[in-house]
Amino acid sequence: MVPLTNKEQEAFADMLIYRSVPKKFMLVNVGDVSREAYFVNSGCARLFYRKNGEEVSANFVFENNFIASLESFLLQVPSRQAIETLEDCELVVLQKERLTELIKKHPRIESFSRAIAERAFIILQRRASSFILDSPEERYMKMLNEHPQISSRIPQHMIASYLGITPVSLSRIRKRISGGTD
Amino acid sequence: MVPLTNKEQEAFADMLIYRSVPKKFMLVNVGDVSREAYFVNSGCARLFYRKNGEEVSANFVFENNFIASLESFLLQVPSRQAIETLEDCELVVLQKERLTELIKKHPRIESFSRAIAERAFIILQRRASSFILDSPEERYMKMLNEHPQISSRIPQHMIASYLGITPVSLSRIRKRISGGTD
Repeated sequence: MVPLTNKEQEAFADMLIYRSVPKKFMLVNVGDVSREAYFVNSGCARLFYRKNGEEVSANFVFENNFIASLESFLLQVPSRQAIETLEDCELVVLQKERLTELIKKHPRIESFSRAIAERAFIILQRRASSFILDSPEERYMKMLNEHPQISSRIPQHMIASYLGITPVSLSRIRKRISGGTD
Repeated sequence: MVPLTNKEQEAFADMLIYRSVPKKFMLVNVGDVSREAYFVNSGCARLFYRKNGEEVSANFVFENNFIASLESFLLQVPSRQAIETLEDCELVVLQKERLTELIKKHPRIESFSRAIAERAFIILQRRASSFILDSPEERYMKMLNEHPQISSRIPQHMIASYLGITPVSLSRIRKRISGGTD
């Protein structure tokens, strides 16, 4: 990602916290000021909104990816989103205060933070543009391409809410894709 | 934004390019590798996608804001989006090569880049979440709150495509808001 010296790498590694959390664990609630960002070492988690008492899934994150309520984490404002684990997870936790201190001591680690912010932006923009440009079926196909395991690891009603369609429509799309009749 | 020394500020200012462009000028085309990001000093511009021969507006930017095909600019990959001015614009142009060189010489300017990437992410996420959570009418109200001048400066069909509705539906919403009957 960004070449750091051994000393910087050590300082960075020292800052990280390893944490195991069970399935269905709420990492961030709507309204929390989130002081942590998470790298998912194993397991999966989702980011979702609450709308009129319903949960709307906005993102699913599998192993080897970051998940955070990034606006809350960056600006230290109440989170609009919630994050919960969908499987038992091994997480690497990045704490806001520790990161800020570390960057003060090792300014080059700033470029690491920048790389994360940029990457988060790009992933989000791809998703947002897909929402504008693609049909629900096309978006489902893209999900399957990126994460072939998604339909066995994520409940169907969450996938449907992510696609902005009803579970019945999702079931129809799945039948069509697998070659079944409607 | 980020406290820089006088020397850093000078180096940064030296890098900037001032450019006047007329209305309806294409700053970035779909497929271009974008080497520039723009700060709009005056005027307004829009970012849009092309879908089956149609233009889908994704963002409008007025004076004192940045506009860029950020994924293309950051990763130097072909742009999925186009950018055009909607009014005569005074732009401050940030060129990729110059910025990269500047950061090499003045590493603390990195934090400026990070701040831009973070801000871009947050603005995009607010828009994406509004797409998920709000009705077209609510989204239009938010637009008006943020940019009261939007309906006099942006053509209605572009606003409609941004909201994901037809111009007829937008006209109905506008009548409802102004207290007219349907």
